[in-house]
Amino acid sequence: MYAYTLGGRAAIGTVRPGEILRVSTQDCFGGLVRGPQDLPSQVCPLPFVNPVTGPFHVEGARPGDTLALHFAAITPARDWGVSATVPHFGALTSTDRTASLQPPLEERVWVYDIDTAAGLVHFRATRGDQAVALPLDPMHGTVGVAPAGFEVRSTLTCDSHGGNLDTPEIRAGATLYLGVNVDGALFSLGDGHARQGEGEACGTAVETAMETTLVVDLIPNTATPWPRIETDSYLISVGVARPLEDAYRIAHADMTRWIGELTGLEQLDAYQLLSQAGTAPAGNVVDPNYTMLAKIAKRWLPGPAAAYAGTHARLRSIAAAG
Amino acid sequence: MYAYTLGGRAAIGTVRPGEILRVSTQDCFGGLVRGPQDLPSQVCPLPFVNPVTGPFHVEGARPGDTLALHFAAITPARDWGVSATVPHFGALTSTDRTASLQPPLEERVWVYDIDTAAGLVHFRATRGDQAVALPLDPMHGTVGVAPAGFEVRSTLTCDSHGGNLDTPEIRAGATLYLGVNVDGALFSLGDGHARQGEGEACGTAVETAMETTLVVDLIPNTATPWPRIETDSYLISVGVARPLEDAYRIAHADMTRWIGELTGLEQLDAYQLLSQAGTAPAGNVVDPNYTMLAKIAKRWLPGPAAAYAGTHARLRSIAAAG
Amino acid sequence: MYAYTLGGRAAIGTVRPGEILRVSTQDCFGGLVRGPQDLPSQVCPLPFVNPVTGPFHVEGARPGDTLALHFAAITPARDWGVSATVPHFGALTSTDRTASLQPPLEERVWVYDIDTAAGLVHFRATRGDQAVALPLDPMHGTVGVAPAGFEVRSTLTCDSHGGNLDTPEIRAGATLYLGVNVDGALFSLGDGHARQGEGEACGTAVETAMETTLVVDLIPNTATPWPRIETDSYLISVGVARPLEDAYRIAHADMTRWIGELTGLEQLDAYQLLSQAGTAPAGNVVDPNYTMLAKIAKRWLPGPAAAYAGTHARLRSIAAAG
Amino acid sequence: MYAYTLGGRAAIGTVRPGEILRVSTQDCFGGLVRGPQDLPSQVCPLPFVNPVTGPFHVEGARPGDTLALHFAAITPARDWGVSATVPHFGALTSTDRTASLQPPLEERVWVYDIDTAAGLVHFRATRGDQAVALPLDPMHGTVGVAPAGFEVRSTLTCDSHGGNLDTPEIRAGATLYLGVNVDGALFSLGDGHARQGEGEACGTAVETAMETTLVVDLIPNTATPWPRIETDSYLISVGVARPLEDAYRIAHADMTRWIGELTGLEQLDAYQLLSQAGTAPAGNVVDPNYTMLAKIAKRWLPGPAAAYAGTHARLRSIAAAG
Repeated sequence: MYAYTLGGRAAIGTVRPGEILRVSTQDCFGGLVRGPQDLPSQVCPLPFVNPVTGPFHVEGARPGDTLALHFAAITPARDWGVSATVPHFGALTSTDRTASLQPPLEERVWVYDIDTAAGLVHFRATRGDQAVALPLDPMHGTVGVAPAGFEVRSTLTCDSHGGNLDTPEIRAGATLYLGVNVDGALFSLGDGHARQGEGEACGTAVETAMETTLVVDLIPNTATPWPRIETDSYLISVGVARPLEDAYRIAHADMTRWIGELTGLEQLDAYQLLSQAGTAPAGNVVDPNYTMLAKIAKRWLPGPAAAYAGTHARLRSIAAAG
Repeated sequence: MYAYTLGGRAAIGTVRPGEILRVSTQDCFGGLVRGPQDLPSQVCPLPFVNPVTGPFHVEGARPGDTLALHFAAITPARDWGVSATVPHFGALTSTDRTASLQPPLEERVWVYDIDTAAGLVHFRATRGDQAVALPLDPMHGTVGVAPAGFEVRSTLTCDSHGGNLDTPEIRAGATLYLGVNVDGALFSLGDGHARQGEGEACGTAVETAMETTLVVDLIPNTATPWPRIETDSYLISVGVARPLEDAYRIAHADMTRWIGELTGLEQLDAYQLLSQAGTAPAGNVVDPNYTMLAKIAKRWLPGPAAAYAGTHARLRSIAAAG
Repeated sequence: MYAYTLGGRAAIGTVRPGEILRVSTQDCFGGLVRGPQDLPSQVCPLPFVNPVTGPFHVEGARPGDTLALHFAAITPARDWGVSATVPHFGALTSTDRTASLQPPLEERVWVYDIDTAAGLVHFRATRGDQAVALPLDPMHGTVGVAPAGFEVRSTLTCDSHGGNLDTPEIRAGATLYLGVNVDGALFSLGDGHARQGEGEACGTAVETAMETTLVVDLIPNTATPWPRIETDSYLISVGVARPLEDAYRIAHADMTRWIGELTGLEQLDAYQLLSQAGTAPAGNVVDPNYTMLAKIAKRWLPGPAAAYAGTHARLRSIAAAG
Repeated sequence: MYAYTLGGRAAIGTVRPGEILRVSTQDCFGGLVRGPQDLPSQVCPLPFVNPVTGPFHVEGARPGDTLALHFAAITPARDWGVSATVPHFGALTSTDRTASLQPPLEERVWVYDIDTAAGLVHFRATRGDQAVALPLDPMHGTVGVAPAGFEVRSTLTCDSHGGNLDTPEIRAGATLYLGVNVDGALFSLGDGHARQGEGEACGTAVETAMETTLVVDLIPNTATPWPRIETDSYLISVGVARPLEDAYRIAHADMTRWIGELTGLEQLDAYQLLSQAGTAPAGNVVDPNYTMLAKIAKRWLPGPAAAYAGTHARLRSIAAAG
């Protein structure tokens, strides 16, 4: 029922452009980490981690098109979530790639209460009695299409096809744009987070199952080389690479092009405007590829800037009507 | 009158802890780039770039202390600023270090009108008639103390002693904490920006001269290994390194320690909380060392968390009274 | 007939452990670049680049085993080879990942005469009359098994499953060890180079078709986490990652473990010996993942060190007898 | 008597171009680590580590010239050397920059017997009875001039002014070329290694005091932007940066230019030749800046290639006569 790759799987459903899709997703541990005793390295047999729901076949999608996924709603399916340190995984530990001879940090599980009505996620210390309520901010860590070049990629990683991007910007109200590589696009999603800090430092967010409502659309004959996100107020390009400065470079080169297309600004003028008006938050600094964002407020772009011919506004209307 | 290094210079003035200091700073081009015809590579003779005002000797400062600089006001001294692309410098070009065989991008200057009353900075395209008003958000790109280990460092770079950090978080209302390495601390500042995007992609911000009011203080016998910033609402650690993920790691390891000290959270609990509650914006991705921030809202730390024994609040009061 | 991925393909043949296999491989351009007028970006339609021959099913291979491929002979199948600069690909240019706004370097093709009898490869300048004869040193840039975790990877990249490692150490006389991830191992090879500099700076070597003789073997119940190479005189671990220091770290952490297993040296003793006795050449610094090697002379290991129970010597004997 | 910086110190002696200079250097620990009980973090008070002998003022040296240092002899001054793991320093551990929350590896000292007559260095395990004799291969880890731009840099780091390059290529028989930044050049040297592996993985080599004979020369009005090394058989460019691929890029861009100047090869032809004929060993992957080399055999350059107008051959003659 769940997939552990993007690509390499038959579609589990079909969607028509403009259609609303409701999807249930499991958490990145497949629901197997439920308390402090459930250490991920013991209860989650590799490679069966980070399950995604899908893939879905989008009618008419062809390589060279762009898939638009508008997130109308992302709602926790449970009143709890978990996070964990996992041996040799995370930003503040040596890893399988940033290899060292040091032993791993302790593996430990944190359980969070999720109060959807109050909009809160409750952190509680494991070695003390400190507690704090953080805002609930549900998002999907993993959304992607089948890769190009006959590739099949683990849901643990990300690249130009999306995947485990792990940026909090993929929340309700956002539209994600992904270039289509194969007929039908074959997109999947999962890895719900009740909330996540930028960088996802310890390697996992507040992981939980989600009920998600999407509006799916297709922009024909329009390539999107790297993932992009649009909200009511912002345009975002997502760079995916190591080292982290390459992710920054990808995102900012893509955003420079995007600004140029939307505003008519010549290349260096667009670069200049982005340099003064853009923000650059980290997505993840823990997965096999890191993510870094180039983000700019639409109100700071000269002239009317309707990305992808107004797709975001249109999908938002469908969501509101739906 | 201006210095081009941190360290290696005699003090131009002395400040007592708790005192208010008013400083005038020149822009990073020494005021020599005034219009499109003033190409930086032609008018700014190396190494006379990025002048700082200072150093100032802080009475009683000893290695192992922490210097606190509260920015009470940062006001543009001119009604214009400039930005520029500089050959083989910036994030979206090969550089002297990320070396390639490609010719440089075109060198070009942008002139901005700064309207301090309206709080606006006016971007105008150089190859078209597009224009947009951005919020004025004055800050200092370069603030630092004399380095440790007898070193003298160019104001073009940054490290644990501060320097060319180039993060927009050093604005009015913020307190910057820097570890003291030599008697008197010997701090300097310059490189005012009317505003700057995160990452400073093209290599320069909206560069302008500034009139700045500081409250200077000293926290004795308290080490601060990497630069930290405090505002009314946030705590920020600044990581300084290449590649960019190392800057992220430094900042987040430092913030994990800082949270632990302030809240009593055990190390992995602090790591966990930061992972879910922190943000991670880029500072600069263009200087010899990059900067990346770990930032957390004070309201998301359990318990009363008065950093450095309430120094920020105290300096804010002095500034308000001053 | 050719494959463009590792994984995702049915076997084209079966080999028994201990068997000799003769394989013909095409060059990385599929033989379509034959002269200065054949620009790769025009004549090589993506993703049909870097064809490999295979996969071959190894009888009895199971996940957790190690595949040993001894290269008995690698002989150019043609008397010419080609190299090329390809737009936005290579070490001394911005790329799709180390993105910049600069135009690409000129795309150009170099044709080399290969004189197998004399053991020479003839470089000739394209913009002058300089020429020089370099030693023929045939090798395979791409050798790999099907990846773990249901993945299918392009032959343009490399990872722990091998792939486009692009190190000159995979020459005749060497034994390559790869961990088996799927039943039958499903290995493939291609990308012959008449010779290659370390790092493969311009992105391509002296590319040519090859006739290759392999002895294939299996070491059951022995994991090999990263590619390893053994020659009569050397042990080599291959790290695969970005940034390049992570590739160095992987290779040296793996070699530290390997030395420990072979000599009984405690971990830090092995680390110390490697630190003084090892060499660390680059493999490639151009592909989606870079490679860096940890290499140590067997004569500098204390005691008899027969890796993989003497597999290399045994395969060498089979090759000599074959 | 010893200096801990490059720059910032008065000359301790003067040398005329063409003159032979004999220099005694202490080891990187200042001779304070003599056995297993002398842990560096306890016996070496920061910043008094890595002492260099110098600086020496070269008569007539001016910014824009190149300093040539020919190493006629490098001889251990003692019959023992030491190596050590140092907390949070080295390639296979988290460090102050590649920060993690993991505890450091154990600090430990290895003592080596140096047998100069036999040309051997004796490794002995500390947790077992294994031993092995490695070839003696004396070199200097640290050689540099005063930096540009009024900077003073710790001898622990390296940059375009040289410094702690930590490459085994600076051995007897080699000529090191460094660009002159200040009047008199003000060069220093130290950090002798009885031998060193490429990358200096554990952070220290076989550290020992040295007696060194240099021939000093000056090439007027000739800039050398990054350190270069020449031997009878090889030309080497040294790239200095993080991440390690930037060090590779610097070295290979510099070597491409150098080959072009020496042979008349057009830029892309030089890039091509280097791509097929060059080797790329690591220098160090542990210091604040990493080093990576571009190395090419002189016999593979078309035409007579006398670098710096035959300086190396000339200095070699002086050394032989001396």
